[in-house]
Amino acid sequence: LTGEFELIAAIRERVARAGAPAGSPGLVIGSGDDAAVTERQGAAVTSVDALVEGVHFEAPPFELRQVGSKALAVALSDLAAMGATPAEAYVQLGVPEGRSDAELLELADGLAAIAAEYGVAIAGGDVTRAPVLLLAVTVVGAAPSAADLVTRAGARSGDVVTVTGELGGAAAGLLLLQRPELGEGLDPAIAAALRERQLEPAPLLAAGRGLAQGRATALIDVSDGLGADAGHLAAASGVAIEIELDRVPVQAGVEAAARGAGADPADLVAGGGEDYELLATIPPERLTDARDLLKAVGVELTAIGAVSVGEGVTLSDRRGGGARPPSGFDQLRRRPAPGAPS
Amino acid sequence: LTGEFELIAAIRERVARAGAPAGSPGLVIGSGDDAAVTERQGAAVTSVDALVEGVHFEAPPFELRQVGSKALAVALSDLAAMGATPAEAYVQLGVPEGRSDAELLELADGLAAIAAEYGVAIAGGDVTRAPVLLLAVTVVGAAPSAADLVTRAGARSGDVVTVTGELGGAAAGLLLLQRPELGEGLDPAIAAALRERQLEPAPLLAAGRGLAQGRATALIDVSDGLGADAGHLAAASGVAIEIELDRVPVQAGVEAAARGAGADPADLVAGGGEDYELLATIPPERLTDARDLLKAVGVELTAIGAVSVGEGVTLSDRRGGGARPPSGFDQLRRRPAPGAPS
Repeated sequence: LTGEFELIAAIRERVARAGAPAGSPGLVIGSGDDAAVTERQGAAVTSVDALVEGVHFEAPPFELRQVGSKALAVALSDLAAMGATPAEAYVQLGVPEGRSDAELLELADGLAAIAAEYGVAIAGGDVTRAPVLLLAVTVVGAAPSAADLVTRAGARSGDVVTVTGELGGAAAGLLLLQRPELGEGLDPAIAAALRERQLEPAPLLAAGRGLAQGRATALIDVSDGLGADAGHLAAASGVAIEIELDRVPVQAGVEAAARGAGADPADLVAGGGEDYELLATIPPERLTDARDLLKAVGVELTAIGAVSVGEGVTLSDRRGGGARPPSGFDQLRRRPAPGAPS
Repeated sequence: LTGEFELIAAIRERVARAGAPAGSPGLVIGSGDDAAVTERQGAAVTSVDALVEGVHFEAPPFELRQVGSKALAVALSDLAAMGATPAEAYVQLGVPEGRSDAELLELADGLAAIAAEYGVAIAGGDVTRAPVLLLAVTVVGAAPSAADLVTRAGARSGDVVTVTGELGGAAAGLLLLQRPELGEGLDPAIAAALRERQLEPAPLLAAGRGLAQGRATALIDVSDGLGADAGHLAAASGVAIEIELDRVPVQAGVEAAARGAGADPADLVAGGGEDYELLATIPPERLTDARDLLKAVGVELTAIGAVSVGEGVTLSDRRGGGARPPSGFDQLRRRPAPGAPS
């Protein structure tokens, strides 16, 4: 490969071979012109997200395939958090000197696998030199209308706070990647699942649509950490949120990994982030319906707290007693070592 | 400013103060939620572009205000090259340690000035640490329908090749920034205009719409270099393009700056890139109309060559004699010193 155009062409070929759609409904002009063109009725939902080497990942332990898949997956998680259906992705790739063509194609394979799995067309891109590997991904999703989407801003006093799946796994997985000896006491399958949670997160697109259909009042993905993201939701909605940490489902192995590292498991669950589960507020009378909608797509929904009049987030832990301040990942700071005082 | 959210809020405040629109027609949900939401009839036009410190610019000589304005301007140039009207921009900002808040707000002021000038809403963004300053910008434009846009692919044998404005200025300006002594023999106003061409390019949005209205058959912006971009257009259209270099309007001072550097001025004109003029193919019978449409928005349109059956680009120079291979800027190589053999 001799330059930008050849690399983009090779990436597109990999994407096509992986079964990713060459187009999306309404995509009139794809990659290769000055811009992509879509013609679609309804609402368009757009989000940007970036993974930067040395800030969001190190490769290794990340394989380049995993860097590609995670970059697209975490961008798509923002569409899940609106209840949108993904349509196109645009990938801005920064490539340092010294990365081989084979490595870049491995990265393309990772992008392609996620694009194929969730039906996303890679409709445009740009490749440039950069001092480290970086992927800035723009994703565009669709919905029949803006009214079919769920923002962070609709939570009301009396709503139930719910979360999909299990938390803490991504942070515990990072611990195991940074300190492999911590995994020695764990069941190998459990340790592998924790590492995979960090390396290969999945965007909960079907669950997001289910929560929108089930008329969640507010929705956000857990990317910065449960406490931090609940704080974003509370601030946008103008409400107070209380979460009972002992009701939050925790992934198997998180407690053991945390204790091995001398950390409080609750810190990984409440502050670790990157689990990409969905945090939703739901009026109590709709909770059963929402649970059923999510069960139909294979996702568990758990009530973990309540919305009330006021502001801010309280994380209470009846086992440990007392409230703790919410914490999370700030993009302008380097990743805190999970378990570090927060 | 203590983190990502504060920085985004401060940038938004600067953008608003600079007179940039808080919204765009059809923007239902702007920055602050998981994604932005638009509801609009017609075609959406999307392009991504990035400026990376050390690859596309050094600061200094770029002021951070100019980095911000250039990042948005060059992204908007891709919308101009489709004939689209800009609507929203999404800015992914990578910030190295050591940049002060004041510097980042200066960068925001630059973004804001371009957003205000061209009526673009900054509808979303993301800030992260990065080893160097980088801005990955996604711009979204609108058009009544896809049929109102002009791609690179419609040039036909017999069309006239035209270019807006004057070329060579951005490359000559870079020379003057790299070797200030070259400017000493130049009229100060001329030297300043060359430097400004490199530091503060303007997207030709009104000219792009004029060319679309005047039914140009193919359109591209001159970002990589006249020869390289004509090559992209020829390849997309499946035609041959001949350009007579002595017909290409050249910005005042380019010849003197090139000769001072021991370079061939034609290399700056044909290979320098970054002028962000528009290259359009137009059927001969429509040329006068297209010229009048552009004159109405203050832009000169010059015929510089012809489209014929075949493939590839020939740059001929009746003064210098003979043809030269097209050259340009490859994003995966570092910027070639202008005037370097290409």
